[in-house]
Amino acid sequence: MIGAHFCLTTPSEVASYCKEARNKFFGKCSLVLKPGSTREVSDVVALANALNIAIVPQGGNTGLVGGQIPDSSGRQIILSTERLNHIRSLDADSNVVIVEAGVILETLQNAADEAGRMFPLALGAQGSCQIGGNLSTNAGGTSVLAYGNTRDMVLGLEVVLPDGRIWNGLRSLRKDNTGYDLKHLFIGAEGTLGVITAASLKLYPKPRDQQVSFAGLETPDQALALFNLARAHAGSMLTGFELIPRIGMEFAFSHLPDTRDPMAETHPWYCLIELSIGSDAVDGRALIETILEEAFEAGLIGDAVLAENTRQAQDFWRIRHGLSEVQKHEGGSIKHDISVPVSAIPRFLERAMAACEAAIPGCRLVPFGHMGDGNLHFNISQPIGADQTAYLARWEEINALVHAIVADMGGSISAEHGIGTLKRDLLPDVKDLVEMELMAQIKTTLDPKGLMNPGKVLQMVKANTKDTKQ
Amino acid sequence: MIGAHFCLTTPSEVASYCKEARNKFFGKCSLVLKPGSTREVSDVVALANALNIAIVPQGGNTGLVGGQIPDSSGRQIILSTERLNHIRSLDADSNVVIVEAGVILETLQNAADEAGRMFPLALGAQGSCQIGGNLSTNAGGTSVLAYGNTRDMVLGLEVVLPDGRIWNGLRSLRKDNTGYDLKHLFIGAEGTLGVITAASLKLYPKPRDQQVSFAGLETPDQALALFNLARAHAGSMLTGFELIPRIGMEFAFSHLPDTRDPMAETHPWYCLIELSIGSDAVDGRALIETILEEAFEAGLIGDAVLAENTRQAQDFWRIRHGLSEVQKHEGGSIKHDISVPVSAIPRFLERAMAACEAAIPGCRLVPFGHMGDGNLHFNISQPIGADQTAYLARWEEINALVHAIVADMGGSISAEHGIGTLKRDLLPDVKDLVEMELMAQIKTTLDPKGLMNPGKVLQMVKANTKDTKQ
Repeated sequence: MIGAHFCLTTPSEVASYCKEARNKFFGKCSLVLKPGSTREVSDVVALANALNIAIVPQGGNTGLVGGQIPDSSGRQIILSTERLNHIRSLDADSNVVIVEAGVILETLQNAADEAGRMFPLALGAQGSCQIGGNLSTNAGGTSVLAYGNTRDMVLGLEVVLPDGRIWNGLRSLRKDNTGYDLKHLFIGAEGTLGVITAASLKLYPKPRDQQVSFAGLETPDQALALFNLARAHAGSMLTGFELIPRIGMEFAFSHLPDTRDPMAETHPWYCLIELSIGSDAVDGRALIETILEEAFEAGLIGDAVLAENTRQAQDFWRIRHGLSEVQKHEGGSIKHDISVPVSAIPRFLERAMAACEAAIPGCRLVPFGHMGDGNLHFNISQPIGADQTAYLARWEEINALVHAIVADMGGSISAEHGIGTLKRDLLPDVKDLVEMELMAQIKTTLDPKGLMNPGKVLQMVKANTKDTKQ
Repeated sequence: MIGAHFCLTTPSEVASYCKEARNKFFGKCSLVLKPGSTREVSDVVALANALNIAIVPQGGNTGLVGGQIPDSSGRQIILSTERLNHIRSLDADSNVVIVEAGVILETLQNAADEAGRMFPLALGAQGSCQIGGNLSTNAGGTSVLAYGNTRDMVLGLEVVLPDGRIWNGLRSLRKDNTGYDLKHLFIGAEGTLGVITAASLKLYPKPRDQQVSFAGLETPDQALALFNLARAHAGSMLTGFELIPRIGMEFAFSHLPDTRDPMAETHPWYCLIELSIGSDAVDGRALIETILEEAFEAGLIGDAVLAENTRQAQDFWRIRHGLSEVQKHEGGSIKHDISVPVSAIPRFLERAMAACEAAIPGCRLVPFGHMGDGNLHFNISQPIGADQTAYLARWEEINALVHAIVADMGGSISAEHGIGTLKRDLLPDVKDLVEMELMAQIKTTLDPKGLMNPGKVLQMVKANTKDTKQ
């Protein structure tokens, strides 16, 4: 069983596990367990099951929807995966790595790099988030366009089920049609169906060259046309396509040290384009120049600037990655993480921006993100000089406004951040009833006592009743 | 409800639905229903559920493991998806197509092509298999290396559940983290959890150029090295990498009209290499020549020949696609559809070929297939002049021999064909016990009466008991 040293019980020890960095979600907890092996995870979960104690699995504690935070009852225990931090094997020839849940994403990226391969998942929190959390939330990030979401990088899983059984599904096969594909049930389930303890993941060839460019445009319609043009030319070599409004650039220049406008003139919208070249036979520079020249001739862009070296490419990306952070300096921000079909992005922006401007005159719209995936962080900074508390009190009202447009366009109210507790009660309104029923059926089947991360994703009435009776 | 014209009841009408092309699997059935809409599928399934009648969903009837064939009781009814044959929508800008289950794969390929896009799934039966069957078996084929299995091309599903409820999960989003990912449960479930009636599928940019080459080699180790070299140079532009033994080539030249050896000298092994170029900036010819030159200099290949035009490229592929067919002319063939980690292919071949040669002196080993995916069709033609019936009587014995080696190497006994009835009873021996339990739990939850394609994939004791009581 777990050594006493890895069972945290004092308030000062458990405090950092009970809240997340933004102080948006916090709960109570008198016990944090840090098992050091899958066996120990299994023992903890089996014992908790026998004692009817609820477990909240936690990785790097970087989730944005509260999925990793216990409730306020003080009766839930946190199971931290931080000691499950071994890379069990790396087979460069087969392009497979087997890692434990507590491995930091950046550690995995570096291990792949040292082996002459790439693990493409990339996101702001990569220096502290753990792969188990990435899997449990099916993390997105900036490489989805070419490599898919986290689930697309998974070949197999090892999971401790709610009753303590260990499912060893750690296969390393590209093709395996022997029965139901169970791994996808646990990926993105936010720890409500079991604890992912290890994963077999795909590695990819390392790009030999990357080209990064900012293009300035007038409208989102032009951005969509530019995306299609770039994809037609570069095919699978188009690995990044991000949309940023002028105000986002300005926020970055104001609040992010060492940033400056890469262009001489201003433009209402910007696209950040990245090409990744895997082959010596491709002249990456000529390719991106061709795309930009054609776009210019077609009247899609007003100007464009190419990163001259890796450093400059990183500077371009730093503007994009800093957009969430810099918004904090501009007062309250009401946020959305939405997706619609890619071609619907311009129409969505038109409708949602008009609706928000009508609802909050003077609000500053900062919709940015993964245009190539149809995923925008539709964030709205408060009007200059407005009262922050009063502004943020309108969060749910504005969410409802935006999400109604999303629903009308067949979109998603959580494209990459998940549900947690933040959006749990919105789910029944946007999901097919049959889908909600199926989710509840599966939750009840795998976790009949409702002890695995209760209250996250789904509000199970039965599970909750039990919880309050303890 | 379904018109009488679409309810087949006479023996001559139902006969072709009760067996498959090779006459390997056959059953009895007195009713074939051909619903024309999702609503009608739902009505049929709900009624069958109320009456405790088992349903066997069937698409193009091209499956290779018996999954689409009723049992011998005569009490199961076949639900054919052939009239669900509409392409509901195609959005080239979003790269999304929504198709009904009965659409023929080739029809979908052509529709995508006409819209300036590509639907990459490609397999021998594409002229008659239906997309619903492709989804239910998670079909593989020759484009998996670059585009993944069928499940990787799916954005959303519409499914009629075993009780007749319709789950509308037809989303067209690249990113959607709102709860459990249910679609992957139905993909590859071979109709045992419900009837897939429609799907939202990804479209891809059409390649601008393709380069196809045959290379002649001495050993599978060289083939693995060549694969890694090609992938390092071409990255995601390497879209096909197939391995063929000399005897497979000879079978093709003997039995496939208008084929001839593309090379002057013979080689023990051949690799068929395909590059697909999405960009004007890439000189595909120079790229494949670079790969082959480096391989030649490194001593990996003895010779290579490039297809000079599309016609010749098709001729090269025709040899590969004809390999199953030509084996029929050489007497009985004991077949396997296995996968191992890609880097383990040479070692697997060494072990499995030695074991088979020891067990059946004079047998002719024809292992071929998707080397880049770690998936081989490990087929063994009978010794020349052997008695076919006596040879095929050893099917299970040889399967056991080969599958033991597969299991020892962490492989799969069904890489792309599925389980059906053919491999159902092998499954408990190769699967983790917890995984078998999880599959049974999910089957029982979604189909408590065991009426959806009973006896396929899983032998549910309870379901079977009920079945025999009817």
